Amino acid sequence: MDAIEKLIAIFERFPGIGPRQAQRFVQYLLRISPSARRELIESVQKLSSSVHQCPQCMRYHSEKNKTCSLCSNEARDGELLAVVAADADLAALEKSGTYKGRYFVLGGTISLGSEKTNGLRTRQLLDHIKKGVTGERGLKEIILAFPANPEGDATANHLREACREIVSPDIKITTLGRGLSTGSELEYADPETIKSALEGRH
Amino acid sequence: MDAIEKLIAIFERFPGIGPRQAQRFVQYLLRISPSARRELIESVQKLSSSVHQCPQCMRYHSEKNKTCSLCSNEARDGELLAVVAADADLAALEKSGTYKGRYFVLGGTISLGSEKTNGLRTRQLLDHIKKGVTGERGLKEIILAFPANPEGDATANHLREACREIVSPDIKITTLGRGLSTGSELEYADPETIKSALEGRH
Amino acid sequence: MDAIEKLIAIFERFPGIGPRQAQRFVQYLLRISPSARRELIESVQKLSSSVHQCPQCMRYHSEKNKTCSLCSNEARDGELLAVVAADADLAALEKSGTYKGRYFVLGGTISLGSEKTNGLRTRQLLDHIKKGVTGERGLKEIILAFPANPEGDATANHLREACREIVSPDIKITTLGRGLSTGSELEYADPETIKSALEGRH
Amino acid sequence: MDAIEKLIAIFERFPGIGPRQAQRFVQYLLRISPSARRELIESVQKLSSSVHQCPQCMRYHSEKNKTCSLCSNEARDGELLAVVAADADLAALEKSGTYKGRYFVLGGTISLGSEKTNGLRTRQLLDHIKKGVTGERGLKEIILAFPANPEGDATANHLREACREIVSPDIKITTLGRGLSTGSELEYADPETIKSALEGRH
Repeated sequence: MDAIEKLIAIFERFPGIGPRQAQRFVQYLLRISPSARRELIESVQKLSSSVHQCPQCMRYHSEKNKTCSLCSNEARDGELLAVVAADADLAALEKSGTYKGRYFVLGGTISLGSEKTNGLRTRQLLDHIKKGVTGERGLKEIILAFPANPEGDATANHLREACREIVSPDIKITTLGRGLSTGSELEYADPETIKSALEGRH
Repeated sequence: MDAIEKLIAIFERFPGIGPRQAQRFVQYLLRISPSARRELIESVQKLSSSVHQCPQCMRYHSEKNKTCSLCSNEARDGELLAVVAADADLAALEKSGTYKGRYFVLGGTISLGSEKTNGLRTRQLLDHIKKGVTGERGLKEIILAFPANPEGDATANHLREACREIVSPDIKITTLGRGLSTGSELEYADPETIKSALEGRH
Repeated sequence: MDAIEKLIAIFERFPGIGPRQAQRFVQYLLRISPSARRELIESVQKLSSSVHQCPQCMRYHSEKNKTCSLCSNEARDGELLAVVAADADLAALEKSGTYKGRYFVLGGTISLGSEKTNGLRTRQLLDHIKKGVTGERGLKEIILAFPANPEGDATANHLREACREIVSPDIKITTLGRGLSTGSELEYADPETIKSALEGRH
Repeated sequence: MDAIEKLIAIFERFPGIGPRQAQRFVQYLLRISPSARRELIESVQKLSSSVHQCPQCMRYHSEKNKTCSLCSNEARDGELLAVVAADADLAALEKSGTYKGRYFVLGGTISLGSEKTNGLRTRQLLDHIKKGVTGERGLKEIILAFPANPEGDATANHLREACREIVSPDIKITTLGRGLSTGSELEYADPETIKSALEGRH
């Protein structure tokens, strides 16, 4: 496999990228100046050197201190811990502007079929929760904020059991509300969503 | 305007039909046999003659009795009344298989901009509720089951006020739960949906 | 089958209409006024009574005279005859503004699999051509203007043979040029189109 | 701008990539192992070192010899020269299997608005043609194989004039045939395409 084919194969592993676009990426890289290619190389190298993972919430950031600004912000509510699958989910929750608690990034969801949980930071989460409960923050609720799909449900079920074993019953373990999402019409909603919307009526 | 143009104009008023498809409909009608055209004419005529509107829930049906099978089914829970915008929404709720109460079809939602409520069966709804409360069915909850969009919200708000004036405070008036709909990912959910999902966590 | 179901089944046969939209059409018809429904019925009835088929080009129209305005326009070039599958194709050729010859609407294309040619006005076309050749118009070219798909190709091949048998060799029988269509890029063009574009280079 | 933001900005310049997907690429790179990141870096570095541009057709390749396998293939027809905008267009023509001549990659098309021709290898093309004409290959036709859009047309017009000045009148300068592309229907074809299809009928 030559350099072009090798790079196409690497880009095909990028999320959402097929063979055709991978090829266009390589053509693009061939077209740009050597200094622009060097810029890409150096930026990827910097990811390895200057980006660190927050030791508390596990998200990636490149702030000055290792512990990220969210985790070191004492104004955030220590009673709430939202467990999310990925950094992008944390960003989505932050953007909604309503959540003022703390986070933990699990690093994925259980992949059905394989039911594999490796790669997920389950052990670190449980350690983190133990500290949160005994610590001065006084953790009171664990919000399992996973996507509304079978993988997300399986992950939430798995974590709910694992958490229950280590926390006292007065600590709530919740999942996100299901129902009609903004803009959706009843007529086109799937039966499962309608069921959730009816159960969650208020 | 000749017969072809006139019929194109009529089909353009059909929901979701643009000029090009309206034209194809007419070409199709020209192509089929005279007896197939007569079949269409007769079926539309039968709509006027054999279809009736249920005097209770206001939906259209062509069952033998005027009152529809849902409204005459004594096994349905008379304590619950779901108010929906259209017949298709009623069908969607039925299909979900969870709702066993009764229905009322309002005939649309408030159209914003105009804020017009005419065309909606608001007065009939209020009469229906009054009877439901005093009647032997013992209405206990009015579920305002409207789409999760500004029109649906405006309609729910409007009806909530109108209903409150005529029913006692111990009758609940609810709206459908909002949140993540089946299959949706946090990353792509809009802030409003995430907010609802957080508020509706359980 | 009741009136609603019957009408849904009829609308499902309309071009491009699935069960859901057929249902919405019926809901729409139930919602509109009886007079608006009557308007639809009358317009369909008028199709049968006031629309006629041009005895020359076979297209449907509702002009005053039976022979359509295109066929009775002596300024159109009688040396050229474009054979098209449907009225909509004739309209598309007219809209392009370049073609000034005459038309014949075949009424469809050969459906592959069945290879059926019934329903097509092949016999009428051949009669029409015979008259065109002997007549004062002096037909010189038959343009088989069919879609660029297997059905269109099969129809063109079939007609080419049938026409050859009845016209002298100095009458040209042509098909439309193939190649890149407006806006298309080489990179995404299929091999067949590139082949045609290369062959048709000029 | 930190390392993450910088890399997002770089990926946003990739063809067809918006801010959201650029962000996902960076998350992906953070998630994979350091050795997988190093693999990307090394492959991009190899592009600079092991990929060369063919001095004849100007396309990028990483074959052993600098002159590419197409240009050094003596079996290819030296009488034909297809001028294309990009490497991907050359690949598309090769895939069609009909073209057996030679190529020249111009490196883009004229961008309208700016009318800029810089960045294009016009001068190199003209030198290449001069050699082709006088050389033993005996160039006889230049095929301007550009996309069927305004940029492609402007580029073809520009090159046609520039080539005419340096080659004798018996060398043909052609463009690709326009018309219906495979699968397209008359009804939906734009007027320009129908016009070309009529002109190109045969």
